[in-house]
Amino acid sequence: MNLDSLYSELTLKPKNKIALLVMDGVGDIAIKENNYLTPLEAAKTPNLDALCKDAAQGRMIPVAPGITPGSGPGHLALFGYDPIEFQVGRGVIEALGLGLELKAGDVAARANFCTLDAKGIVTDRRAGRIATPICEELCELLSKKIKKVEDAEVIIKAGKEHRFVVIFRGKGLEGPLTDADPHREGLPIPAADAVDKKSAKAKKAAKLVNEFYKLALPVIAAKKPANGFLMRGMAHQPLIPTIQERYGLKAACIAVYPMYKGLAQLVGMTKLEGAQNIKEQFERYLAEYDNYDYFFIHFKYTDKYGEDGNYAAKVKAIEEFDAALPVFTRKLPAVFAVTGDHSTPAPMKGHSWHPVPVLLSSATSGSDKLERFTETGANLGSLGLFEAKYLIRYMQANAGMFDKYGA
Amino acid sequence: MNLDSLYSELTLKPKNKIALLVMDGVGDIAIKENNYLTPLEAAKTPNLDALCKDAAQGRMIPVAPGITPGSGPGHLALFGYDPIEFQVGRGVIEALGLGLELKAGDVAARANFCTLDAKGIVTDRRAGRIATPICEELCELLSKKIKKVEDAEVIIKAGKEHRFVVIFRGKGLEGPLTDADPHREGLPIPAADAVDKKSAKAKKAAKLVNEFYKLALPVIAAKKPANGFLMRGMAHQPLIPTIQERYGLKAACIAVYPMYKGLAQLVGMTKLEGAQNIKEQFERYLAEYDNYDYFFIHFKYTDKYGEDGNYAAKVKAIEEFDAALPVFTRKLPAVFAVTGDHSTPAPMKGHSWHPVPVLLSSATSGSDKLERFTETGANLGSLGLFEAKYLIRYMQANAGMFDKYGA
Repeated sequence: MNLDSLYSELTLKPKNKIALLVMDGVGDIAIKENNYLTPLEAAKTPNLDALCKDAAQGRMIPVAPGITPGSGPGHLALFGYDPIEFQVGRGVIEALGLGLELKAGDVAARANFCTLDAKGIVTDRRAGRIATPICEELCELLSKKIKKVEDAEVIIKAGKEHRFVVIFRGKGLEGPLTDADPHREGLPIPAADAVDKKSAKAKKAAKLVNEFYKLALPVIAAKKPANGFLMRGMAHQPLIPTIQERYGLKAACIAVYPMYKGLAQLVGMTKLEGAQNIKEQFERYLAEYDNYDYFFIHFKYTDKYGEDGNYAAKVKAIEEFDAALPVFTRKLPAVFAVTGDHSTPAPMKGHSWHPVPVLLSSATSGSDKLERFTETGANLGSLGLFEAKYLIRYMQANAGMFDKYGA
Repeated sequence: MNLDSLYSELTLKPKNKIALLVMDGVGDIAIKENNYLTPLEAAKTPNLDALCKDAAQGRMIPVAPGITPGSGPGHLALFGYDPIEFQVGRGVIEALGLGLELKAGDVAARANFCTLDAKGIVTDRRAGRIATPICEELCELLSKKIKKVEDAEVIIKAGKEHRFVVIFRGKGLEGPLTDADPHREGLPIPAADAVDKKSAKAKKAAKLVNEFYKLALPVIAAKKPANGFLMRGMAHQPLIPTIQERYGLKAACIAVYPMYKGLAQLVGMTKLEGAQNIKEQFERYLAEYDNYDYFFIHFKYTDKYGEDGNYAAKVKAIEEFDAALPVFTRKLPAVFAVTGDHSTPAPMKGHSWHPVPVLLSSATSGSDKLERFTETGANLGSLGLFEAKYLIRYMQANAGMFDKYGA
C-alpha cells in the first residue's frame, strides 16, 4: 500500500488549528568568516527562544540529499507534496503569483523584455530593467495584437519591471519546454523545444511558442530598449490535489510576495491579501483565526538577504520576524511549526541543499529541552533529520488528525 | 533489487545469541506537567544505566512519520516486517493469543458477549464483564450446538471475562470484514460486510458470519446478562514468512499477555509459557539460553500505565523492569536491544507516533558515551532516527550474521 493512501485512510476531521510559519531560506552555515555563528545563532530572538521550551526540533531535507530546491519544490514539500512527484514549472508559479487563474493544461511561460541588436543578438537580457509602466504598456500592445496563436488563446500579463507572463490556452498542450533564452548576452534567442521529444503535446506547445515569437517580435521591433523578449520555465499547470482534498484542511495563505501566493493557490489555499509585513501578516492571522484550519504565513526577507550575501541584514530580518512573533502568540494555534523552505546561506548568496531547522510545537510535541532555535540545536532534536514532505504529517498527528493504525 | 532480498542474500548462519527486550509503549513526552521529565528520565534505573556505557542508542519510527501504531504493526516492525506490507487483523492476533493454531485462509473474529434488550438493541457491550467461567460455559454451549456454518468449520474459544474468539475455517474465505458491533450502546448489531466489496471471498466470509449469528443468538437468548455477542476485527490469517525463513533464526517468545504471544507465534516463534512476571521471564530466558538464537521478551506494564495516564505507575514499572535486569545480565547475549513497540505517553493516555528510544549493545555496537537510556539522550545516539523495521537488521549485523556486500 502506498504511504499517501495509508495517511488518507487514517485521516480524521480537523478539530484544531495548524500554522506553518516559513522564514524563507532561513537555514545557513556556520563558517569562520561569520565567527561560526549562523544568522539564527547570531540573532537575538527572545520570542522564538521562549517557544523552544515546549517544542520538538529537527532538520528537514527539502527534496533529497544534496539537492538545492527552488521556491516551488521547497514549498510543495512543506505543504506535504513530494517535490519529485509533483513538479511545477517556474512559468506556472509566476503566472499564479500574478493572480492569473490557470486551467488544467495551460502552458505558462515566465518572460522578460530584452534588447536585441539588428542581427537579433541579445545585448541586454533585461532591457535595462525598464520601469513597470513601460512593461505594462508593451504587454497591452502585445495583448491587443495577438489574441491567438493557431488554435490557442494567448494571455499576456505584465509583472514588475521587465518581467511578464504568457499563457497558452488550447487543446493538447503540455510542458516542459526548453527555454527561449540563451541565458547570457551575445547570442540569439533559441527556439523553444519539447524537453520530452516523444511528447506530441509538448511539441505542439513549442511550435506555438515559436509562432508566437514570429507574431510578437515585429510588434515591438521599433521599441527602445525593449525590442525583444525571452521566455523560460515553460510548463503546464499540473494536476495537483488540493490541501482540502489531500488532508481535509481548509487552508489560507498570508504572504506578501506573488510567487508564494501562487504556490499556495496551486494547492488550493485561499489567499488572504493585504498584509504588507510580517506584523500585519500575524494580525491578519488573528483576524482570520476562526475561518481556517491551516495557515501558511510566509516571511521573505531571510531568503532575500541570504541571496544578497548580506549576513548582517539576514540576522536583522530574523530579529524583525522575532519582534513580530508576540502578535502571533496572542492566539497560539494547537499546532505550529517555524521553519524554512530551504537554506539560503549568506556566504553562498543563493539557495542550498543544507537541511533546514524546524521547530514544532503542540500540547503533544513534547519538549526537546533546547534553549534556542538554531541549526546546531535542531541537530539534537527528537524529529531528527527527515524529508520536509513529512512535516505536515507530524503537524496532522499533533493536531489529533490521525486514527491509530492497526490493532 | 529489493532490499529484503539483498539482506537475505547476505545472511549467514547465526552463531550468536540475540535478545529483544520490549518495554511496551515505553516512549513518552517531556511536558511542563511532568517537570519536563519523561518516565524514563524520572525513573531510577541503575541497571539500565550500567548497560549504556557499551551501547549505541537512537530513536525509531514504528510505521511512518506521524502514524500511531497498534500493538500489531508495532511488534511486526520490531520483528523486521514492514508493518504496511504485512497487515494483521485484530481477530487474528486475539486468536493466536488464545493459543489457537490458525491455518492460511482462516478468518478470525474477536468477539465478546453483550446484553441485548427484547428488540435486539445492545444495552451493555460487555454484558457486565461476566466472569471467565461463565464465558467458558457459554462458549462450550455454542461450540456444542454449532460446529459448522454452511461448508465452513466454526471454532469457538473463550478468553478472559466477556471475551472470546471465533474462527471460520473453510474454502475461499478472506477478510477484512466490517464489524458486527455498533461500537456503542443503544443500537442493534449491524450485519458484517466485506470491506472490499469486490472480494467474493470476503463476501462469502461476511455471509458466514451473518449466518452464524442466526444460529448462535437463539442458543443463548435466554441467558442473563450475556444473551448476545459482538464480533469485530474480522480478518484472515495472512501469509507471513517465519523468522526462521526470513532470517534463519530459531526464535522464542517469553511474554505474559496473549496478544504478544499471538504476534510472536504469527511469525513462527516458539512460545515459552509459564513465566508470570518480568523476573520469571528473564529466568526462563536463562534456562532456555542454549535452545534458541533469538529471544523476544515482552514487558507490558509501561504501556498499561501509559494508557491509564498514570505517570507515577509508569515510572515504577520502568523501575520494576530495571530491578529485574540483573537476572537477564547474568548471561548477556552477544546482541541485545531494549526498546518499545511504540510510545504510550502518559499525558496522552494512549499510543502515539513519537519515535521510540532504542538501546543496542554488543561487542561491536560501540559506545555512544551516554550515561542513561532516555528519549533526550537517544536523540544524540549513533543510530539516529530510523524505521523500526531495520532494528533486526542492526541486530543481525551486530551478531555477525551478514556477509560483506560487494568486493
